[in-house]
Amino acid sequence: MTLETVSTTRSHGGVQAVYRHTSTATGTPMVFSVFTPPQALGGANCPVVWYLSGLTCTHANVTEKGEFRRWAAELGLIIVCPDTSPRGEGVADDAGWDLGQGAGFYVDATEAPWAPHFKMWTYVTEELPALVAAHFPVDMGRQGITGHSMGGHGALTVALRYPGRFKSISAFAPIVAPAQVPWGQKAFPAYLGGDQTAWRRHDAVALIEDGARVPEILVDQGTADGFLDNQLRPQLLADVCAKAGIALTLRLQEGYDHSYYFISSFIEDHLRWHAARL
Amino acid sequence: MTLETVSTTRSHGGVQAVYRHTSTATGTPMVFSVFTPPQALGGANCPVVWYLSGLTCTHANVTEKGEFRRWAAELGLIIVCPDTSPRGEGVADDAGWDLGQGAGFYVDATEAPWAPHFKMWTYVTEELPALVAAHFPVDMGRQGITGHSMGGHGALTVALRYPGRFKSISAFAPIVAPAQVPWGQKAFPAYLGGDQTAWRRHDAVALIEDGARVPEILVDQGTADGFLDNQLRPQLLADVCAKAGIALTLRLQEGYDHSYYFISSFIEDHLRWHAARL
Repeated sequence: MTLETVSTTRSHGGVQAVYRHTSTATGTPMVFSVFTPPQALGGANCPVVWYLSGLTCTHANVTEKGEFRRWAAELGLIIVCPDTSPRGEGVADDAGWDLGQGAGFYVDATEAPWAPHFKMWTYVTEELPALVAAHFPVDMGRQGITGHSMGGHGALTVALRYPGRFKSISAFAPIVAPAQVPWGQKAFPAYLGGDQTAWRRHDAVALIEDGARVPEILVDQGTADGFLDNQLRPQLLADVCAKAGIALTLRLQEGYDHSYYFISSFIEDHLRWHAARL
Repeated sequence: MTLETVSTTRSHGGVQAVYRHTSTATGTPMVFSVFTPPQALGGANCPVVWYLSGLTCTHANVTEKGEFRRWAAELGLIIVCPDTSPRGEGVADDAGWDLGQGAGFYVDATEAPWAPHFKMWTYVTEELPALVAAHFPVDMGRQGITGHSMGGHGALTVALRYPGRFKSISAFAPIVAPAQVPWGQKAFPAYLGGDQTAWRRHDAVALIEDGARVPEILVDQGTADGFLDNQLRPQLLADVCAKAGIALTLRLQEGYDHSYYFISSFIEDHLRWHAARL
């Protein structure tokens, strides 16, 4: 597992770095970013928070616009930001921005033409954690996970299927029930085929209905988010969490949209939430 | 003076907006961004801090990557970010990124082919302030100015030539003596011609040598900035300020480069510096 350093930049007393490696899961080069806070530069093993990005994004969007370093530096958190799909000339793609490259949905595709490379579930749950554990000063006993939109879906489903791995779970404007909304109803048949039992293992609401449990979740959702009513539908998560006894803190943020201006406004709250539990 | 609203986005309890207008100074459409903090949304007139950007930038770079809104919202500062030059098909340009579009150097060009549109001095010192005063809840008696690189040059020269207008002055990695370094020695003859007396009116070190005074200046400069030794040379400013009795706080930030990762690491300090004086 060789890591190529793309860049390292001093920021907020820590180091913002970008790395490239050849993924065995996807069979492609993959790029991700890691912010190492001052505490870790000083030799301490630090807790790690995973940030999974949304449709069309790479590692770069949140790295440039997320405004997380000020708080990660204060709180001593390592922040890891993966890409959202395999990429490149030999990798399948779709004309739409909500399928294919930039839209991996954090699943292991089983269907043509996606199956050869679209193995983002294995990448973010197995390969990248092992790589991070081997190369960075992380305490893997203290992990949190968050994400935005499709990445919020990724964060919730990963956390629900690895109970105990993450001591803190949050999301910004997550797709909480992809099997019930147009984005998932396009991506899931393409990647996973027609059998909806496979879909349910990648749908946070369905996973909870089927018995998956975590203690608590923080979700922020902007009320001016253009995807709120037809793609995100946080009330579905609120309802199933209430039934399942999961302590969901769902904050509807008045007037906020789906952009990084929304994420960056509340990332401080999220990282403080994670740090308090890590 | 009609303002077209390009976008308004809720952020950190305030509003990040982008506007377009037809500039009488440049004779072109110009775009700028304004962050209005919660205090101003509540009806208060707030102090304004001008941020002038560097080579190749538009209003968008600092607006997306500057991480200033968290602090502007807390401190009640309106932040205005102009573009760095006129732009468009009918506007002169150069093959290099350090002359022409994206590189206006905050001067009024007198030479062909630049003179018709490159009137950034008039734009940032007269036209845009009048526009901002007319359209936004600003207290023009409480103005601060800052900028990065070429924009740091702009901030320093504007402040030195309008003594009393700005109660607070800072810069990130400014070009302090353009007439003595390659960037200025390319841009100044192109825009201003061969008469170096014209150059001196757009060179912070020369302006101070020639008698211009402000009470105090804050400058941050990264030690790993690749432009430090041949383009920026902050010691020239330190020397002339010492002679002139200007209280310069020059902070050399170990390991920081010339990027927004540097700016965003110290923007909190700068905005607190401005707020304390506004």
